[in-house]
Amino acid sequence: MDIKQFVLAKAKEAKEGARSLARASSGQKNAALVKMAAALKDRAEELVSENKKDIEYAAKKGLSKAMIDRLTLNEKRIDEMAQGLVEVAQLPDPVGEITKMWRRPNGMTVGRMRVPIGVIGIIYEARPNVTADATSLCLKAGNAVILRGGSEAINSNRAIVGILRDVAKAEGINEGAVTFIDIPDREAVMEMLKLDGIVDLIIPRGGEGLIRTVTENSRIPVLKHYKGVCHVFVDRDADPGMAEDICFNAKVQRPGTCNAMETMLVDEGIAGVFLPAMLKRFKDAGVALKGCPKTTGIYPDINEAKEEDFHNEYLDLVLNVKVVKNMDDAMDHIAKYGSAHSDSIVTMNYDRAMRFLREVDSSAVLVNASTRLNDGFQFGLGAEIGISTDKIHARGPMGLEELTCTKFIVLGSGQLRE
Amino acid sequence: MDIKQFVLAKAKEAKEGARSLARASSGQKNAALVKMAAALKDRAEELVSENKKDIEYAAKKGLSKAMIDRLTLNEKRIDEMAQGLVEVAQLPDPVGEITKMWRRPNGMTVGRMRVPIGVIGIIYEARPNVTADATSLCLKAGNAVILRGGSEAINSNRAIVGILRDVAKAEGINEGAVTFIDIPDREAVMEMLKLDGIVDLIIPRGGEGLIRTVTENSRIPVLKHYKGVCHVFVDRDADPGMAEDICFNAKVQRPGTCNAMETMLVDEGIAGVFLPAMLKRFKDAGVALKGCPKTTGIYPDINEAKEEDFHNEYLDLVLNVKVVKNMDDAMDHIAKYGSAHSDSIVTMNYDRAMRFLREVDSSAVLVNASTRLNDGFQFGLGAEIGISTDKIHARGPMGLEELTCTKFIVLGSGQLRE
Repeated sequence: MDIKQFVLAKAKEAKEGARSLARASSGQKNAALVKMAAALKDRAEELVSENKKDIEYAAKKGLSKAMIDRLTLNEKRIDEMAQGLVEVAQLPDPVGEITKMWRRPNGMTVGRMRVPIGVIGIIYEARPNVTADATSLCLKAGNAVILRGGSEAINSNRAIVGILRDVAKAEGINEGAVTFIDIPDREAVMEMLKLDGIVDLIIPRGGEGLIRTVTENSRIPVLKHYKGVCHVFVDRDADPGMAEDICFNAKVQRPGTCNAMETMLVDEGIAGVFLPAMLKRFKDAGVALKGCPKTTGIYPDINEAKEEDFHNEYLDLVLNVKVVKNMDDAMDHIAKYGSAHSDSIVTMNYDRAMRFLREVDSSAVLVNASTRLNDGFQFGLGAEIGISTDKIHARGPMGLEELTCTKFIVLGSGQLRE
Repeated sequence: MDIKQFVLAKAKEAKEGARSLARASSGQKNAALVKMAAALKDRAEELVSENKKDIEYAAKKGLSKAMIDRLTLNEKRIDEMAQGLVEVAQLPDPVGEITKMWRRPNGMTVGRMRVPIGVIGIIYEARPNVTADATSLCLKAGNAVILRGGSEAINSNRAIVGILRDVAKAEGINEGAVTFIDIPDREAVMEMLKLDGIVDLIIPRGGEGLIRTVTENSRIPVLKHYKGVCHVFVDRDADPGMAEDICFNAKVQRPGTCNAMETMLVDEGIAGVFLPAMLKRFKDAGVALKGCPKTTGIYPDINEAKEEDFHNEYLDLVLNVKVVKNMDDAMDHIAKYGSAHSDSIVTMNYDRAMRFLREVDSSAVLVNASTRLNDGFQFGLGAEIGISTDKIHARGPMGLEELTCTKFIVLGSGQLRE
């Protein structure tokens, strides 16, 4: 098989799908999403039986239990997938919104109208639910998808895509709107990444290795998410009780997420009062602590942090603790070791709160709130296709608006260029 | 010399400059821009003498007169460059604007704040004025630049950069804010394009060859501008006089620009009335016409258009003319042959005007106005660093806002993730 030609043909199908979707009304798109949800539930048995093939193959290949669990589809997970589609149907349609409109001295009215991006390539790993989740968000925003899931889930993904395409067709939407690269060859990804001019955007979802490979090889713009090395800075004017609750929540509530705190920075003016109770609470919750020399001076019963620890995204119950001279010292640390993801200050000092908000350069900067709140649902975007650590196009949680672009529109009455 | 290390060191200087600029107030940035303008004028002799070296070398190398003209700096051009800096100083500062702010059910306030992108790499060709123009826009939006101009202009560019850096330093801005790759090696560009993580955005300015090379080799997001194959569609319900003026302006007012019309599409319901006078006016103005068979049927005295002509960006007094069945036919033509740059409809029919506006997928879609109006100044953006034909981050004319991104800010009172 000529993989280059195969991928090119798929991309052209998706482009046709995108043209069809761009003209679909909100009502048509919503009806399709709701019927896709119903079809996934109706055909759950088919999905489970295709999924079994993937699981058996994964077991033979000796994949880990965690991997196999991520791969597994059962009735509950299919219901959740379907529920996700229904929820996306209920969100407002971003397409057609005129975000701004103004009049020029020559009498013409100029505006910006939100329109679909076009064709979005989604490259992801084992979880088959991404197939339905990512498709629903892209479709709602009027974009066609080219899906390229992990080879371990190829039978499950093919089955999900088959169902979504059947519904699209029945609802008068060109099936190319949901296009699937159903061959496992790695070369297919490389070919896809060269199709600038047909594919408008690539969103990789998965581990750092996948994301680096995609970024290094893509001629198409990529919206990506690298690691989250997040900080909470406890200022000398913090309310100690609030600071304790925020730091505890940021580390412990779900440590495996990108917006969990990895390093707690404490102003030396409050360290003596704050650290003993805080670190005891962490220890009692099973958090392994790594402290700077000043921290171990105050609370000796923990390990010493090494310089490289401050670069780490633990994604686990492990925390670096560092006493800093003041907020400038804390901001220098964040600029040097942070990943510009989510950083929070706890303080009652107005001036420092405003400076921290302005000067820290992260996708979300918070005052007196847990870093765990940096999330599309928590922020009220209604949905999330990921958190961008890029600065171009989208930064932070990406909802439906981030899956659109704007074009200029001009309402004239015969205006010419002088 | 180790070019890789050299470019890396330059990029790190720029990153320091970006940190310094991000914290600079609007007043500080504006003062620097105004003083830079004054310094360029004060040191005009130095600029002209450095520019002479480039011109002599270009003459020896046998560059064309047009190229040498583009390269030349004289008092008038230096004054224009300086005037450009003063105008940018007068524009509103986009940094710090809070574009939206809302309250969440848990009481926290979430907003989006406009912030600089960081370090922007500008890769350009012969014109030395780009050095000052691009720098001024990036600086105003709080970004450091790494400049990489054409090797033909290296002495002129080095002299301009030297002046800008002297002023930056005197105004308390880290000189890295204006960083210049002052070696002519091509490898330097390739190394720069690998520095994702330090350089945040690349803007190439120049011919299609340059832009393709940059896009194919960059790991950093690129904002680019490919060709403009622009259309005016004269609907059957157009006012013929208005249509004639708009089409004439779109083709003739400045044919060498990307937003000039390359193909005129005419509804068959108006072709017989409209074409004879229109085509005569074009002929009288020296426009070479290429018509479809229906056009030559109505107006025989012109050449026949070949299929490939409809893909051409002539940038000259040459025009394709095609009679179409209706607006859908016209929109299909635009989707197939256009470059999604600027497309206009001339009509008094409300329904078709609204459909054309929604359904044509171009950076600017105009009703009853010349395509030549797709321009940052004409649209009221106050400045323009280029017109993006991309869909990611910026589409259409790019002003100061497009040189920023937004971060999420959260004003909390102890909110935790449940």
